[in-house]
Amino acid sequence: MICDNKRLAELAVLVQGELVGDPEILIRGVADFDNAGEGEITFVADLKRGAMLDKCKASAIIVPTSLPEISIPAIRVRNPYLAVARIHALFVEKPFVANGIDARAVVGQDCRIPAEVAISPLVYLGNRVRLGQRVTLHPGVVVYDDAVIGDDVVLYANVTIGHHCQIGNRVIIHSGVVIGSDGFGYATDGNGRHIKRPQVGAVQIDDDVEIGANTCIDRATFGKTWVKRGTKIDNLVQLGHNVVIGEDTLLVAQVGVAGSVTTGNNVVIGGQVGIIGHIHLGDRVMVAAKSGVTKNLEPGAMVGGIPAIPQKNWLRSSAAYAKLPEMLRELRELQRKVAELTGVMEPGEDDSPGNNE
Amino acid sequence: MICDNKRLAELAVLVQGELVGDPEILIRGVADFDNAGEGEITFVADLKRGAMLDKCKASAIIVPTSLPEISIPAIRVRNPYLAVARIHALFVEKPFVANGIDARAVVGQDCRIPAEVAISPLVYLGNRVRLGQRVTLHPGVVVYDDAVIGDDVVLYANVTIGHHCQIGNRVIIHSGVVIGSDGFGYATDGNGRHIKRPQVGAVQIDDDVEIGANTCIDRATFGKTWVKRGTKIDNLVQLGHNVVIGEDTLLVAQVGVAGSVTTGNNVVIGGQVGIIGHIHLGDRVMVAAKSGVTKNLEPGAMVGGIPAIPQKNWLRSSAAYAKLPEMLRELRELQRKVAELTGVMEPGEDDSPGNNE
Amino acid sequence: MICDNKRLAELAVLVQGELVGDPEILIRGVADFDNAGEGEITFVADLKRGAMLDKCKASAIIVPTSLPEISIPAIRVRNPYLAVARIHALFVEKPFVANGIDARAVVGQDCRIPAEVAISPLVYLGNRVRLGQRVTLHPGVVVYDDAVIGDDVVLYANVTIGHHCQIGNRVIIHSGVVIGSDGFGYATDGNGRHIKRPQVGAVQIDDDVEIGANTCIDRATFGKTWVKRGTKIDNLVQLGHNVVIGEDTLLVAQVGVAGSVTTGNNVVIGGQVGIIGHIHLGDRVMVAAKSGVTKNLEPGAMVGGIPAIPQKNWLRSSAAYAKLPEMLRELRELQRKVAELTGVMEPGEDDSPGNNE
Repeated sequence: MICDNKRLAELAVLVQGELVGDPEILIRGVADFDNAGEGEITFVADLKRGAMLDKCKASAIIVPTSLPEISIPAIRVRNPYLAVARIHALFVEKPFVANGIDARAVVGQDCRIPAEVAISPLVYLGNRVRLGQRVTLHPGVVVYDDAVIGDDVVLYANVTIGHHCQIGNRVIIHSGVVIGSDGFGYATDGNGRHIKRPQVGAVQIDDDVEIGANTCIDRATFGKTWVKRGTKIDNLVQLGHNVVIGEDTLLVAQVGVAGSVTTGNNVVIGGQVGIIGHIHLGDRVMVAAKSGVTKNLEPGAMVGGIPAIPQKNWLRSSAAYAKLPEMLRELRELQRKVAELTGVMEPGEDDSPGNNE
Repeated sequence: MICDNKRLAELAVLVQGELVGDPEILIRGVADFDNAGEGEITFVADLKRGAMLDKCKASAIIVPTSLPEISIPAIRVRNPYLAVARIHALFVEKPFVANGIDARAVVGQDCRIPAEVAISPLVYLGNRVRLGQRVTLHPGVVVYDDAVIGDDVVLYANVTIGHHCQIGNRVIIHSGVVIGSDGFGYATDGNGRHIKRPQVGAVQIDDDVEIGANTCIDRATFGKTWVKRGTKIDNLVQLGHNVVIGEDTLLVAQVGVAGSVTTGNNVVIGGQVGIIGHIHLGDRVMVAAKSGVTKNLEPGAMVGGIPAIPQKNWLRSSAAYAKLPEMLRELRELQRKVAELTGVMEPGEDDSPGNNE
Repeated sequence: MICDNKRLAELAVLVQGELVGDPEILIRGVADFDNAGEGEITFVADLKRGAMLDKCKASAIIVPTSLPEISIPAIRVRNPYLAVARIHALFVEKPFVANGIDARAVVGQDCRIPAEVAISPLVYLGNRVRLGQRVTLHPGVVVYDDAVIGDDVVLYANVTIGHHCQIGNRVIIHSGVVIGSDGFGYATDGNGRHIKRPQVGAVQIDDDVEIGANTCIDRATFGKTWVKRGTKIDNLVQLGHNVVIGEDTLLVAQVGVAGSVTTGNNVVIGGQVGIIGHIHLGDRVMVAAKSGVTKNLEPGAMVGGIPAIPQKNWLRSSAAYAKLPEMLRELRELQRKVAELTGVMEPGEDDSPGNNE
């Protein structure tokens, strides 16, 4: 644990919560409900787990305001997840240690690197790279020529940042991420051969973005591929060339976004979703996991399915889908009955079973 | 080839098979049916290929016990794939060569490294890393502080093992795998901003697990993400935080498993499947490729589709799906006929077209 | 910009286009429509954007032959994308710089490396590696023993080339790609344990192939996994063992191809498609994004859906899918009406002998 113990009252103030019990209790860390013990604070996010409060061995607990009564020291808050995120960060965030540039790192020419950085062995920086204050580059990181990296950025092992790409402040990029690979752009000649279109744009990642392991973000054909402030991207996501992702957006693992898609802010894209090229998703759009989005979506739209339709309809259609064989059988049965009825009604007509065209 | 030639009789004993023909035939290796020649053993797994046995140029062949007759030297076994796996391993497994620690590797402080290891150039080990006997670390491997790696482990090029993660014995991890990246966990504040929840758990990989290239396994929020003994994971798979995968399970390429999913043993998950968070899949569950699993599954369940339903139903529903336009047309036709019939039966009723509700 | 300025007439000749306006105009580069200015050439690919030609500030423009009139200097061509690809390449292709082998690279024994190469720091070459002329290896590249790499190949940061794999001429491989990881092959014993089948084949990548970031191509069990001339593979694609991909084929991001699949030439596979093992896709097959292909496909087939069906049918079925709840409701309504009609018919039907079901 990094910081000193904190009084429960201090923590309550930090998260603007309502203190229950002894304000002087000392807390040294956060743990999950089942494992929290003496000196730790834990949390319950919903009322169901609230029923198990008598099993709690933590010194204090963060609970939702909706929880009726509580007999142990607690902080009541509207959003326990948010409160625990803030309190937990307080205990575990490590102060930056400026180890400087390890002698086994490779640094190109004309780089601008402040004194306050931590560059590991086996890092490679190209020429004219610019690093912000307190940048941490882990082993195996490769930053190509003319890239610019902001303050307080962490690049984990084996991350690649392409030439001329720009990374904002407080960005966290996990291992194996590739920023600035060429977009997938070809023109096909008369013989069916695919001629590479040069990809001369770059990638811009704005402040407070986090990018999960082995995700790929291609550089633009012209201009830039752009991920805006506060957006969080999970592992193994693919963003094509010239994509623009708005602010405070969540892209869950294995999402694929084709070229030139743009999104508004506060969008949520579920895992393994695919989005076809050149469309726009408005603010606050939500796409259910595994969907395939093929059309522009209005702000606030909630969609699901392949191709994606309004979420409500998709839930009904997918429920009906499970009944399709039954429907088919019933339809055939009805056809038979109706043919029979028709035969009865119109005795002069040919009643052979073949006339269902 | 590593080992000396083997007598056919020895190989038959190794796989508990029935020897057919000369026990003294010398075998020096395994090849596939079309390319096997003098001194090699090959195999047929099913009876169809058995019909082609006269084209076989190998010195011996592994065949299923169900194959009626065979005129060339052979080993009859219940499971030819299993027999060939064991015999092939005998010929190709290379003895460990203890090259020690290359001078161009980077080793942190207070590591515990036995003499019998092979650590390549350009490997990075953090502080307090513990390695087992006969560990092989290929170039570009990064092992963070306090990680523990068991005996006979092979980490291929550019693998990342996060801090405090634990790798069991005989684990094989292919290039580009990331173990221990942060889980995708955020709490959203009143302004729609996503606040990172610290991810302070670790990853534990048990004995005899194999993990395919560029797969990502996130560390737990608290506690551990856990892959149990004997499980095999293909390339580009995503396991979220706090996932627990049982023993002897197969996860085919590009599967995505959301946070806190748990599975039993001997589960098989087809390629590109997605599994929603916080559910449990019982022992021996089988999920068809590309499915989306949204609910707990009982032991032995076989499911498919998005959302996944019992496999039998899904096969029927997806067959019916192809007939949907036809069904829609026939339904409309029936409606027309029934309306007609109703009109004939109840001539006094309003025959306006609006009464199709 | 690398090359000198070019006269517009020269560019028109290069792309076999029809020159409109002053042939002596000097062009120094290519830019996109919105940003192109003095001295640059831009393009419009379709007539819609043609309507905006008066906003063009470029010195010249590439237009489709179908565009009726044009008042600014231009080159008319059948395929503007193709023309711009060729003209752009002329301006941006950098001449190879033979930096030789950096002293901080690691080179094994008995390698064959020409003088004209560019091997970065932190590259690792195993033993007996053979490199062609003008090969560029970026930092973090790992090439295992006995691999062979052709002329004019570029391997970006942290690419892994497995032992005995072969890479053709002019191949471009983006960061994080893994070529030659073991195929996912196991035999399951009587206790449900998965026994690894040795994967002793290799991977062969032919001339003019490009492979996107973090894509994985497994080595064959026996023989080779093979990507043929001119094929372009996007990011995060998975090719299983013994897959053979034909010439001039496009695999969009996150495609997964299971073991032993073979394809013809000029195939196009949309993003996130999955292809089941051991099937063949004929020449010019097109698979819609997110589909799951489960059967052999004839040359020229266009398919979509999970499982994939002819594209036309799939479009109709997926449109009908959105109406499924409505269809179910209408079916129930019809059943009710038909039951009613049958009830009306049956009590009085003493004289119709024919309706014996």
